Amino acid sequence: MQFVATEHPHRRLNPLTGHWVLVSPHRMLRPWTGQQEAPQKSNIPDFDPTNPLSPGVARPNGTVNPAYTGTFVFTNDFPALMENNPVPPASDDPLFQVSEARGTCRVMCFHPKSNVTLPQMTVAEITAVIEEWIKQFNELSKKFLWVQVFENKGAAMGCSNPHPHCQIWCCSFLPTEPLIKDERLRSYYNQYGRPLLADYVKREVERKERIVVENPDWLVVVPFWAAWPFETLLLSRNDNKRINDVTPAQRENLAKVIKELTIKYDNLFQCSFPYSMGFHGAPTGEAAAADVSHWTLHALYYPPLLRSASVRKFMVGFELLNEAQRDLTPEQAAQRLREIDGVRHYTEN
Amino acid sequence: MQFVATEHPHRRLNPLTGHWVLVSPHRMLRPWTGQQEAPQKSNIPDFDPTNPLSPGVARPNGTVNPAYTGTFVFTNDFPALMENNPVPPASDDPLFQVSEARGTCRVMCFHPKSNVTLPQMTVAEITAVIEEWIKQFNELSKKFLWVQVFENKGAAMGCSNPHPHCQIWCCSFLPTEPLIKDERLRSYYNQYGRPLLADYVKREVERKERIVVENPDWLVVVPFWAAWPFETLLLSRNDNKRINDVTPAQRENLAKVIKELTIKYDNLFQCSFPYSMGFHGAPTGEAAAADVSHWTLHALYYPPLLRSASVRKFMVGFELLNEAQRDLTPEQAAQRLREIDGVRHYTEN
Ligand SMILES: O=P(O)(O)O[C@H]1O[C@H](CO)[C@@H](O)[C@H](O)[C@H]1O
Ligand SMILES: O=P(O)(O)O[C@H]1O[C@H](CO)[C@@H](O)[C@H](O)[C@H]1O
Repeated sequence: MQFVATEHPHRRLNPLTGHWVLVSPHRMLRPWTGQQEAPQKSNIPDFDPTNPLSPGVARPNGTVNPAYTGTFVFTNDFPALMENNPVPPASDDPLFQVSEARGTCRVMCFHPKSNVTLPQMTVAEITAVIEEWIKQFNELSKKFLWVQVFENKGAAMGCSNPHPHCQIWCCSFLPTEPLIKDERLRSYYNQYGRPLLADYVKREVERKERIVVENPDWLVVVPFWAAWPFETLLLSRNDNKRINDVTPAQRENLAKVIKELTIKYDNLFQCSFPYSMGFHGAPTGEAAAADVSHWTLHALYYPPLLRSASVRKFMVGFELLNEAQRDLTPEQAAQRLREIDGVRHYTEN
Repeated sequence: MQFVATEHPHRRLNPLTGHWVLVSPHRMLRPWTGQQEAPQKSNIPDFDPTNPLSPGVARPNGTVNPAYTGTFVFTNDFPALMENNPVPPASDDPLFQVSEARGTCRVMCFHPKSNVTLPQMTVAEITAVIEEWIKQFNELSKKFLWVQVFENKGAAMGCSNPHPHCQIWCCSFLPTEPLIKDERLRSYYNQYGRPLLADYVKREVERKERIVVENPDWLVVVPFWAAWPFETLLLSRNDNKRINDVTPAQRENLAKVIKELTIKYDNLFQCSFPYSMGFHGAPTGEAAAADVSHWTLHALYYPPLLRSASVRKFMVGFELLNEAQRDLTPEQAAQRLREIDGVRHYTEN
């Protein structure tokens, strides 16, 4: 029997983590009688005076937001990381290792209106978001080893507020995922003399089958090793190492690619598509002067939906205990995203 | 300032994975306005003729279940793994690594009634479940390198059927998590001359602060490195390497510990507490004859709830991109679970 990826279970290696993903494409036929996601609220007003992220509104701690008209950044009122913590006592017991964690957490609103999301914003408005990311990164990367810009979108992804916003968590340490990635990117670079993700871009451009959106500066693919059904990887084609390397011309193209990708996402199941996304680039702070030739700036999109606006993939049981498992193949996901309209948002029809 | 674990953010190392967990205990004060879990169905009948896991009922593929009175095992009608697959072609490109995946998936019903769960079953009934796990393991471990017994419980954990059941997924390969664990346990054993988890049991018994339930054969703790709010680790105190090493006397004690732990879980938020759980022990199949001195049989419980029956922890954004983050400390979680009734189920009150 001839191996056919869309029919036969197999595993694929994620070279960025060293983790394998089990691909079981025939499982798409399985009936689903489990949990349905709650329908989304569609009656959000432009301005909601009870929303603590809205311009001019008082947050629970009493601070009143300015009457902002573009982006707006403030320190999280319940930060997971703080700047001045006592250092935990050192332990030489390998089973009880503790280490210090300092940092800061900011919230960044994308837009004054509560009822728009990135795909509904103009390229100029998204470019302003990118400019603000870079401004924040310039400031925070001076002080912190790791600056994580990320967006949790939608209730299914634990987002507690529909107002368009992202978060920026800064760490005095290199967190586990970027630490592993840094090691793997470095070891590939030492072996092949080129950044892993630059080689990957080259090969995906040749093979074409996993491309979702592209322009001269950016490439979006469903990676060969995607774990989430419609996971994508947004890659710099310019050897940018960090988000603040992105030139003004590349910013507009980044805004275009983000708009097109998120319109496609929303159009796929005709809903405001939930996801967690974030940028990974070379470490900063005390690592700023280190050799980072092995890095390539990229963003990771992890969307949970599988079959429709209300049926998600659960990463549970086998996945938590063994390894990620996916149903449709990355190539099938890429084809669906490639073919769907990326220009006109479904709400405009 | 003196370091206080319940007040100051810090990181803890999971020695089984090498991953760190960010602990931010002060975040418990944060208000929650996000997604609420759907209330559970409480009107499930003893026997539901429309439930494909019930005795005597026809499954969607036409097979009629026997009129079983104890446990009942069958091959999953939509298995993620199958026994006869063609092998994918080998690639020497490090960015496009594929490997074969063969195996089988079984479903195991715990009880003929659809409306009981493990905490509501008698110790004898739970012992019968353990006997069936061992019987299945004896058979499947001859053939497969990895036999994963796991239970997804509750709609929040992607479980699509309330009938009490677990799954057994068998793999021709060692999946990512057990592969990493095997390496870490071995390297600890090589360095210290004792199994890591045997040392861990010893130290937790001395320290007491993370113990939830114990008896002479088994210990349940909220591990020092727990990621999920009420995550627990059930450890063998007898140097069992695999579930089929568990002697008849130890089986009854295992049933008692499972009953007590799951009653505590249900009583915590007065609901049928969702979780994914599974056993990890030494690899089998072609690895059966290898030296496995470094292994200790254990079960991992990953429950998602954080504050109440309807408010869960979301492992999203920062967690997916960086590392797990938890709010209350493992010691606080252990104390709550230790203090809550583990004998009388809340529905009996
Ligand atoms: O096989 P089930 O119970 O229908 O499916 C559930 O468990 C599987 C194994 O953990 C997961 O892959 C699925 O995402 C989940 O919904
Ligand atoms: O800070 P938020 O948006 O309230 O919280 C959300 O994002 C955080 C960072 O990914 C997670 O730790 C929380 O579990 C999630 O609910």
